[in-house]
Amino acid sequence: MNDYYPLDAFQSPRFGQPATFMRLPLERDAGKLDVALIGVPFDGGTTYRPGARFGPREIRNQSALIRPYNPVLKVDPFLIRRIANYGDIDINPLSLDDTYRRVQEAIATVVRNAAIPICVGGDQSISLPVMRALAAEHGPLALVHFDSHSDTWDVYWGMPHSHGTPFRRATEEGLLDTDKALQVGIRGQLYSEDDLAFARDHGFRIVAIEEIKAGGPDLLRREIDRISESPVYLSFDIDVLDPSIAPGTGTPQIGGLDSFEALQLLRVLRGLNIVGCDLVEVSPPYDSANVTSLVAANILHEILCVLPEEKKGRG
Amino acid sequence: MNDYYPLDAFQSPRFGQPATFMRLPLERDAGKLDVALIGVPFDGGTTYRPGARFGPREIRNQSALIRPYNPVLKVDPFLIRRIANYGDIDINPLSLDDTYRRVQEAIATVVRNAAIPICVGGDQSISLPVMRALAAEHGPLALVHFDSHSDTWDVYWGMPHSHGTPFRRATEEGLLDTDKALQVGIRGQLYSEDDLAFARDHGFRIVAIEEIKAGGPDLLRREIDRISESPVYLSFDIDVLDPSIAPGTGTPQIGGLDSFEALQLLRVLRGLNIVGCDLVEVSPPYDSANVTSLVAANILHEILCVLPEEKKGRG
Amino acid sequence: MNDYYPLDAFQSPRFGQPATFMRLPLERDAGKLDVALIGVPFDGGTTYRPGARFGPREIRNQSALIRPYNPVLKVDPFLIRRIANYGDIDINPLSLDDTYRRVQEAIATVVRNAAIPICVGGDQSISLPVMRALAAEHGPLALVHFDSHSDTWDVYWGMPHSHGTPFRRATEEGLLDTDKALQVGIRGQLYSEDDLAFARDHGFRIVAIEEIKAGGPDLLRREIDRISESPVYLSFDIDVLDPSIAPGTGTPQIGGLDSFEALQLLRVLRGLNIVGCDLVEVSPPYDSANVTSLVAANILHEILCVLPEEKKGRG
Amino acid sequence: MNDYYPLDAFQSPRFGQPATFMRLPLERDAGKLDVALIGVPFDGGTTYRPGARFGPREIRNQSALIRPYNPVLKVDPFLIRRIANYGDIDINPLSLDDTYRRVQEAIATVVRNAAIPICVGGDQSISLPVMRALAAEHGPLALVHFDSHSDTWDVYWGMPHSHGTPFRRATEEGLLDTDKALQVGIRGQLYSEDDLAFARDHGFRIVAIEEIKAGGPDLLRREIDRISESPVYLSFDIDVLDPSIAPGTGTPQIGGLDSFEALQLLRVLRGLNIVGCDLVEVSPPYDSANVTSLVAANILHEILCVLPEEKKGRG
Amino acid sequence: MNDYYPLDAFQSPRFGQPATFMRLPLERDAGKLDVALIGVPFDGGTTYRPGARFGPREIRNQSALIRPYNPVLKVDPFLIRRIANYGDIDINPLSLDDTYRRVQEAIATVVRNAAIPICVGGDQSISLPVMRALAAEHGPLALVHFDSHSDTWDVYWGMPHSHGTPFRRATEEGLLDTDKALQVGIRGQLYSEDDLAFARDHGFRIVAIEEIKAGGPDLLRREIDRISESPVYLSFDIDVLDPSIAPGTGTPQIGGLDSFEALQLLRVLRGLNIVGCDLVEVSPPYDSANVTSLVAANILHEILCVLPEEKKGRG
Amino acid sequence: MNDYYPLDAFQSPRFGQPATFMRLPLERDAGKLDVALIGVPFDGGTTYRPGARFGPREIRNQSALIRPYNPVLKVDPFLIRRIANYGDIDINPLSLDDTYRRVQEAIATVVRNAAIPICVGGDQSISLPVMRALAAEHGPLALVHFDSHSDTWDVYWGMPHSHGTPFRRATEEGLLDTDKALQVGIRGQLYSEDDLAFARDHGFRIVAIEEIKAGGPDLLRREIDRISESPVYLSFDIDVLDPSIAPGTGTPQIGGLDSFEALQLLRVLRGLNIVGCDLVEVSPPYDSANVTSLVAANILHEILCVLPEEKKGRG
Repeated sequence: MNDYYPLDAFQSPRFGQPATFMRLPLERDAGKLDVALIGVPFDGGTTYRPGARFGPREIRNQSALIRPYNPVLKVDPFLIRRIANYGDIDINPLSLDDTYRRVQEAIATVVRNAAIPICVGGDQSISLPVMRALAAEHGPLALVHFDSHSDTWDVYWGMPHSHGTPFRRATEEGLLDTDKALQVGIRGQLYSEDDLAFARDHGFRIVAIEEIKAGGPDLLRREIDRISESPVYLSFDIDVLDPSIAPGTGTPQIGGLDSFEALQLLRVLRGLNIVGCDLVEVSPPYDSANVTSLVAANILHEILCVLPEEKKGRG
Repeated sequence: MNDYYPLDAFQSPRFGQPATFMRLPLERDAGKLDVALIGVPFDGGTTYRPGARFGPREIRNQSALIRPYNPVLKVDPFLIRRIANYGDIDINPLSLDDTYRRVQEAIATVVRNAAIPICVGGDQSISLPVMRALAAEHGPLALVHFDSHSDTWDVYWGMPHSHGTPFRRATEEGLLDTDKALQVGIRGQLYSEDDLAFARDHGFRIVAIEEIKAGGPDLLRREIDRISESPVYLSFDIDVLDPSIAPGTGTPQIGGLDSFEALQLLRVLRGLNIVGCDLVEVSPPYDSANVTSLVAANILHEILCVLPEEKKGRG
Repeated sequence: MNDYYPLDAFQSPRFGQPATFMRLPLERDAGKLDVALIGVPFDGGTTYRPGARFGPREIRNQSALIRPYNPVLKVDPFLIRRIANYGDIDINPLSLDDTYRRVQEAIATVVRNAAIPICVGGDQSISLPVMRALAAEHGPLALVHFDSHSDTWDVYWGMPHSHGTPFRRATEEGLLDTDKALQVGIRGQLYSEDDLAFARDHGFRIVAIEEIKAGGPDLLRREIDRISESPVYLSFDIDVLDPSIAPGTGTPQIGGLDSFEALQLLRVLRGLNIVGCDLVEVSPPYDSANVTSLVAANILHEILCVLPEEKKGRG
Repeated sequence: MNDYYPLDAFQSPRFGQPATFMRLPLERDAGKLDVALIGVPFDGGTTYRPGARFGPREIRNQSALIRPYNPVLKVDPFLIRRIANYGDIDINPLSLDDTYRRVQEAIATVVRNAAIPICVGGDQSISLPVMRALAAEHGPLALVHFDSHSDTWDVYWGMPHSHGTPFRRATEEGLLDTDKALQVGIRGQLYSEDDLAFARDHGFRIVAIEEIKAGGPDLLRREIDRISESPVYLSFDIDVLDPSIAPGTGTPQIGGLDSFEALQLLRVLRGLNIVGCDLVEVSPPYDSANVTSLVAANILHEILCVLPEEKKGRG
Repeated sequence: MNDYYPLDAFQSPRFGQPATFMRLPLERDAGKLDVALIGVPFDGGTTYRPGARFGPREIRNQSALIRPYNPVLKVDPFLIRRIANYGDIDINPLSLDDTYRRVQEAIATVVRNAAIPICVGGDQSISLPVMRALAAEHGPLALVHFDSHSDTWDVYWGMPHSHGTPFRRATEEGLLDTDKALQVGIRGQLYSEDDLAFARDHGFRIVAIEEIKAGGPDLLRREIDRISESPVYLSFDIDVLDPSIAPGTGTPQIGGLDSFEALQLLRVLRGLNIVGCDLVEVSPPYDSANVTSLVAANILHEILCVLPEEKKGRG
Repeated sequence: MNDYYPLDAFQSPRFGQPATFMRLPLERDAGKLDVALIGVPFDGGTTYRPGARFGPREIRNQSALIRPYNPVLKVDPFLIRRIANYGDIDINPLSLDDTYRRVQEAIATVVRNAAIPICVGGDQSISLPVMRALAAEHGPLALVHFDSHSDTWDVYWGMPHSHGTPFRRATEEGLLDTDKALQVGIRGQLYSEDDLAFARDHGFRIVAIEEIKAGGPDLLRREIDRISESPVYLSFDIDVLDPSIAPGTGTPQIGGLDSFEALQLLRVLRGLNIVGCDLVEVSPPYDSANVTSLVAANILHEILCVLPEEKKGRG
């Protein structure tokens, strides 16, 4: 048996014991892990509704309901990989710049130890320092980004960093191999018809919601073909889901995916060389009945199930 | 640049400033407008759960998140039409009759000034005085009505007016060209098999939810063909949406449209000669996480995007 | 007119009068009824979130909105059958064993009087004593079970009875004709790949959510073919619905049915020889805006509409 | 044992069985009762937040927790009086005038049968027809009115009847012996300094919140001295309580009584010749955690405990 | 510096890191501790509203806001005692009997190691096995019990154990020195005037809410005088607080203490030889805005501050 | 009649029309005003729960219920002063430094026009730039600060500015006449016994909650004696109120004032030379039933009633 395995719910009820992601142990030594579940409770990049700083706490709570085995993908990720809670990064809620430094440094440590970081936000602004750390190790990253927004705007109130800008900055900093950047589920009103020009001009493939609703997993399967050899960054903004599925988020956009569709799409990613992930924009104070954190916990499990199977040697 | 344009969110954060529909200015002179957004906070026609009187207030709040440009229809309605908040009509919460007089009179003023009224309810009973004012100007109206209920019942507790009767009264009063009346999304239990007899006998085309789920936008496109030359009244009862999408409403009915489906259907209406609209039955006290008001705000924007493009001359 | 008919909402507003299921009268003499609506407010078999003991109370409240006539199935069940509230069974919240005795005895009385019991839980653990009473009368039962979980686990914390085990116990006790057992909507993580082995080894047909989403009513129609001659137990665990549709439940599982799909599936069951039903796992304290109890009330009505039409003679 | 007694919670759990006030039986024959608990679910007189139409339903639910014996007053009201649910009056939600007729008539029947009506609103507008029926039997009534508002305003939007006007109309109609009218807990902003002139000019004793907080039960005891011989109408507007105690109400006013203070004051009323009561303005859609309905249920029980002890002969 | 100290909020934001009580470390070796904070997430003894099983989880969350130093008592309990999270006891949600065994055994281990157990429920039924373990070590216990209910009823539905009976069972089992048993805050309706006879006959001093509101800390100071030499069990049922202060509880009772009063009373206990404590009946699903768990976390801190100062030697 | 007066609720229902503070008009020219109500929707200084950026929006909504006349102080502030909405300051949610510049500049404009700014936060960090603007005009300010926290901590995560530090920074910058600084309601755990040393060493008078609960308005009256000649800054942190009264706040602290007590204390301030005010820390996403915003709106009105009566000449 793996050293790191969820508490057995047949022995210890799911509502008991201090909450960790998936009821897994805490392990602060990345060298012992294949995958590190990391909270990044920062929402200082939020432009409308805050609260994502409480995302990791409530997703931990709701993940208590997750059983280990995935009957569709026929895998128990906790059996074949060493996965544990790495704790939260102690961000600075009063400074985005300081937070960026702290996040990049913490993720760099994880990556240097050959563990895959799964970052639970927090708002989408945290994706940038995570990508910085990953690109430093792996070079320019391919991107699979589920979101209703492209997050390639330029500046808000004169500021270069926010949850609306990380993929533009990442592009400018050379962190992304933008010909292998895919954004799925994009929808909703824009400021003008030029909002997506930056992304398109740099080679991003934007799959609008209308396309993905019509084309489904098959469409996505075709799209990821060209990134199958690259190190991939997977970013999942919970607002790619419809507000009825995930109301607890900062900038909800109607007309989104339901959770069945999201699971179907995520499963297509199996086989990609995913080197790092984030799941962002869960804002518990805006949730109702904690459904958003619950769906987020399930998405996390599904992500764990599609991570590349080759593990670090344990010899 | 248009005189009436939403506040720029890159300058003024969306959560700031007194809330108006779409963050547009107030303009009480209909003569200056192509389209008037008007609150009609009356719920005295409600037979079950009240609260729609607070619909305009909360839809104003939630509309703060709407950006101007519609990338699917490729239009920014605020650039091509003069659209503003006209304020709320001061209804009389203790008298439906007095309210009907006030609403009809206020809408008549708007219509006389050649502005299109978009009325935000309030319950569905407000549709009748709005249609009265419009028919006085345009003659009998074609109707596109999204709802789970036909609202052509006769009397409740001996009363002719309520949110369950406006389209019957409108028919009796000759306000509708009932051969061009379309009701979409109808579903749910009835009192008896005769409930829809009045509507059908008068020529209404009732598109049940099973039909529209199966036929989609194509079906609707065919159905509106015969009303393409008529002045059209567009009424959107939020309960055409499923209660998971829009729980905050007075008489929710399961098995409804999701918001993606609703957007797809609304887009089909582009090109119709819409002369007036309402969006009704949003009841914030029964909402959770304000999702209903949020979806209503988005529906409002989509409606603005399908209004006829010919504007009043500004010369 | 039937002796038992919902209060007339055109006379008595829906929000008034003490709440009963569907605003039907109370009738404690099963001999006068074709169908008995029975609350079973027990949640002592719950392994995660409790609260289903309040299911009957809130479903009664929300059922006030249900009108009698079903326009899709073209039936008013209250006209053709004598349906009433039989009250709640006085369960023992401190003892599952005592509760099982009480439930079995109460249902046996109903069944002996040739009335069909419709049991409103409560958690899924109540299904076992209901099936015991039914099988004592009808012999081994065919099963149509809507759920995200198979509920054929063996023991929790050493205990044989809980909401996760009733169909295993029923199988062991010979209450089910397991070759005619159908479970629809199954999904979600498992403890291991063996979790469903018991059910499959005993002949259960497990229709996973992926199958039923793809195959729809047609698939279900084919599957129920072989049980058309048998006495059928119909169990509807509300968590077969997606958490966005039914958040108020004990162990929600994402990726489920929406209410339109559920209605479509239920309608297929018309013609089966349903001898007893339950609707379980509605937990109002975890609900938002009472949508779960509302959908449950509608599901109850749809179930009433597919019950076998042959009634007891009234001579 | 009394024929009418709450269900025994040691046998039948409090969360079970259809909800009635205090778990008492239904009895539609007022002639059999000393006290009739009557729901009056009308909120058509509301000027701000509606929803009091759902007051009776939720107060019934929350009253399930009430045990019968009052250890402070040392009385079990159900042992010494025949108290039961009389059901709700079928009001007309679309017509205040029709509702007034229905309420007055229903209460007149109760009063003619020498039962004391305890009316559970609904908004404060229902007090007028109740007082009309009582004054017709008993002559002008003394008044003990707990409220933050005097409700003696004249007209709103030109209408004479609303929840802000019943005690002015009652005065004008001669229903009140205004020298024996007491209003307790009055507070909050007014439209002008003249708002209370009508009441004061007609002899009402207005005990402002500052007075009653300082003077407590002793002050009230002195004030009621002069009404000890009169038939008394007791009206309890839940908004006399602080919004932290009773948030679920239509026009909440800060700085109110807490529930301990309210109980202390109510107990002083023992010995008065109370001939009728109402408890109004509980609006469940604006409540949180149902605390308002819970406190209302407790207030109802306390009122039952201070009703005059002489009963109708049962001989 | 103590080995066990709350995370420094000036370094690690309060919303970050997996939640433990007071942000203290986990320590499963009772021998290293003076005080063990222990979750006991059992609510199987609940007779009305369940949910207290989630008490420990949410109190952990809300305790993140607690700073260490108490300026009124002028003490930082974490500096002078070794206090840590001992984790939750793995109770059996399906069996009260098995749970009682598990709790008693776990607490016995703590007590044998000379650590003071602070048990966070869960419902009040857990007090019995805790007292069993403590009395086995210390002999009959004095009792200070804050509650609105005496919890000395005999049986419910024929069952001897529930949250309404632990202090009767404890008396019968000789666990209490009932002449030194104090119950504070008792109030609310009873089943009959005999409900408190058992307690009074056995020497309990019952301080009704009216007494303690009038007498305050001075009254309590006098009452505890006679128990100053005894080993004391301190039990705090959150429903001693008013439902406006603590709505999230199983059987709320109006007219209770506010949190200022509760703090004042608790501070009087300083100097007693408290050997064990519980804080019970926090039911998060019935809470609003988590205020009940927040107040509970503060009560926990205040309890830590009044524990006896003599510690185990640390060599 | 004043040019600036709340909309007449007898004509225009309170739930109608776009929400402004107290239903007063918008006026962007400070020169026309005696008092400017200004939203400052910034919560970037929050260390725990965010959301105060939505304070102005929801307080505007809830202020719709406020009538103009204060019967205790016998004043209608809108008759004797020109009071209007000045709109919100367009803060920069991504930069505290930029926000400080914007706030200081905007307030300076108001102050230069001899209008009293009433700033509605937002978190307490906004007090610093407001005080900067006021001190620039009036010299060092006396302070009356209602709060549970002294907010004179030094740094968090190395940052000088947050909602925990403004009064320390103000002291260091010479903005306060600290011998005339009064902090009322202080309570709750501290980091250590030195937390209040800075304030006390600089002459602040800290009135702990125990003092003010015991001493009441009389105590406060004595304390403000020595500041009667000074320009006073009045700061009201909503968390001075108990969490049962005001749950919707960032760092709630139990054991606080109730709203009656708060009103009593505020009234004592009449006659002071108040030159500026703030009301901060209302966080709507953490509220329940909007009670916090409602109490805040009432506090605002009470503040308007105690402002100095001498107005600018209107010539």
